[in-house]
Amino acid sequence: MHIVITGAAGFLGQQLVERLLAEGELNGQTIRHLTLVDMAEPPMPATDGVEVTRLALDITEPGGLDAALAAGPDVIYHLAAVVSAAAETDLELGMRVNFDATRALLEGCHARGLAETRLVMASSVAAYGGELPEVLDDMTALQPQNSYGAQKAMSELLINDYSRRGLVDGRVLRLPTIIIRPGRPNAAASSFASSILREPLNGEEAVCPVSTDLAMFVMSPEKVIEALIHGAEVPGDALGPFRAFMLPGITVTVAEMLETLRQVAGDEAVARVRHEPDARISAIVSGWPSRFTTRRARELGFRGDGSLREIVDAFLNGKA
Amino acid sequence: MHIVITGAAGFLGQQLVERLLAEGELNGQTIRHLTLVDMAEPPMPATDGVEVTRLALDITEPGGLDAALAAGPDVIYHLAAVVSAAAETDLELGMRVNFDATRALLEGCHARGLAETRLVMASSVAAYGGELPEVLDDMTALQPQNSYGAQKAMSELLINDYSRRGLVDGRVLRLPTIIIRPGRPNAAASSFASSILREPLNGEEAVCPVSTDLAMFVMSPEKVIEALIHGAEVPGDALGPFRAFMLPGITVTVAEMLETLRQVAGDEAVARVRHEPDARISAIVSGWPSRFTTRRARELGFRGDGSLREIVDAFLNGKA
Ligand SMILES: NC(=O)c1ccc[n+]([C@@H]2O[C@H](COP(=O)([O-])OP(=O)(O)OC[C@H]3O[C@@H](n4cnc5c(N)ncnc54)[C@H](O)[C@@H]3O)[C@@H](O)[C@H]2O)c1
Ligand SMILES: NC(=O)c1ccc[n+]([C@@H]2O[C@H](COP(=O)([O-])OP(=O)(O)OC[C@H]3O[C@@H](n4cnc5c(N)ncnc54)[C@H](O)[C@@H]3O)[C@@H](O)[C@H]2O)c1
Repeated sequence: MHIVITGAAGFLGQQLVERLLAEGELNGQTIRHLTLVDMAEPPMPATDGVEVTRLALDITEPGGLDAALAAGPDVIYHLAAVVSAAAETDLELGMRVNFDATRALLEGCHARGLAETRLVMASSVAAYGGELPEVLDDMTALQPQNSYGAQKAMSELLINDYSRRGLVDGRVLRLPTIIIRPGRPNAAASSFASSILREPLNGEEAVCPVSTDLAMFVMSPEKVIEALIHGAEVPGDALGPFRAFMLPGITVTVAEMLETLRQVAGDEAVARVRHEPDARISAIVSGWPSRFTTRRARELGFRGDGSLREIVDAFLNGKA
Repeated sequence: MHIVITGAAGFLGQQLVERLLAEGELNGQTIRHLTLVDMAEPPMPATDGVEVTRLALDITEPGGLDAALAAGPDVIYHLAAVVSAAAETDLELGMRVNFDATRALLEGCHARGLAETRLVMASSVAAYGGELPEVLDDMTALQPQNSYGAQKAMSELLINDYSRRGLVDGRVLRLPTIIIRPGRPNAAASSFASSILREPLNGEEAVCPVSTDLAMFVMSPEKVIEALIHGAEVPGDALGPFRAFMLPGITVTVAEMLETLRQVAGDEAVARVRHEPDARISAIVSGWPSRFTTRRARELGFRGDGSLREIVDAFLNGKA
């Protein structure tokens, strides 16, 4: 089993590498070779026995994917992307990384006859937008209101078409908002969703820029990684007529997040959250849908978190 | 008012040119210049006073759109496309014409600062697919099951994103199946839908390859041309969060088509239709959705045919 990961130095990429090496196998086959691709050389993971090739390259360069595809990988995780703020600032960059590189990957598989290769891409809740219903389902239109979401939606269509034609075996997972991300707050509009739990649990202050009524559709990093692994294991013919679907996140309000924080760490932890409404952040995140039936993903065996409490407990266990 | 039409030598292109010249104005402004683009030089339309530039070129060539865009047109009708069978046979050709040329058009407008230019593209009912509900609406997902539909859906997303960013003023009309097309039967799977009316009305035989229960979503060529004209007249800010929507076709069954034929031309006309079921054609066309609420289009003032009888009467008047 040879696995290629683009964006392997990123947040999910590194966690996925670690988990794959811990498992030692994917889809019942021993992992013998990992090819890790990113702009800068991905860190060397701890392993004995598994061959690790690390490639520092820009996948948007002509032929940039040749080295990764030459050996005919069994599975490709396509995680390289420029995220929403960057894609909104620089349309050309977003198109190149988020769309053209996906197309190059598909064409590379096509040219090499990699029809059996399972290509797993991460799409996003940001691909939804417009006049959304109260509860979204697998047949809700993607009418993205940001360039990142549009580029992800276009990549979904292309992966589906190449898969339908039998040129590759693609599957696209639309990720909910991920909480609790480790590390520090960042520029993402959703950064507060991790921050208002993580910082108080670490004894630090956090800022909540949105109303406590705000509902979000969330998934823990652990469940996202499990979904990426399951995404490579689902048989192609089980996927039905469209290769992209929303993962089974859970719907939580900010008020529920603060109440869970109180349950696990007391009133003094909740007191560390300062409420400073930010109209810009509120406007962005309130446009994201928060309620989904995720029938297709559930039928395919994808599993979400049991509860917000489980997400917080897992974070505390990870720290311990 | 300077109007560019790509695919101007095609079926809809030629009808649109004729109608625009007959009207003499678009959106309340006198038409002074038409630029007609197609692979071969489009025929010279009858006009006095309107400047007509005819360009024989391949819009997928680098710089292929430069001559058409240089003068900064007020309206662009982007009708050039390779249709479904050709796009299914040749993925690379379909991607180039149906998607890359749309992107080049958008980039060409962007590079020249044509933010006010109204870009009207024709999309298709073929962009729908998958596990569709009984009645589709403006928020039904596009999960195309053919490359033509996938390329149209990707173009929709791109036109919407460029419009959202204020780089062009795009609008995309998803066309129902067009009946009654003039001329002869062709290779399109939907060819019979025109044929079973047109041929008997002309005293000729026709073949019906599908069950008389089959329902289709249809629109007359006249109403499609009116919709293209209206599509350039709707103000951009009325279009809401997504620039693509289904036009208000009407749902008709093959049985209703034959009954209407009987009403206008008697039993002997109906007797000219031979029923020869064709599994391949039935499989294709039965996958196309036939029932839509088309709220967005109606609110924007797009109008469909009143009834199947009106479509047939208009065809007979056109012949007379
Ligand atoms: N909720 C969501 O919508 C959501 C959340 C997380 C991740 N995602 C998606 O999951 C994937 C991984 O996300 P992440 O959080 O790990 O992001 P990340 O930014 O941490 O990692 C992305 C990696 O891609 C690399 N990359 C970017 N451009 C590249 C190029 N041209 N060539 C090579 N490498 C390049 C970056 O260097 C980075 O290491 C992305 O596709 C992202 O869009 C979606
Ligand atoms: N129901 C539907 O879904 C439906 C029905 C009709 C038309 N449409 C769409 O409406 C548009 C017009 O359709 P039509 O029936 O007039 O089709 P058509 O095939 O008669 O016309 C298309 C024209 O585009 C031209 N063309 C193709 N590739 C070109 C290139 N590379 N450079 C320059 N010109 C090129 C062709 O030469 C042709 O004249 C198309 O975009 C089509 O997809 C959709």
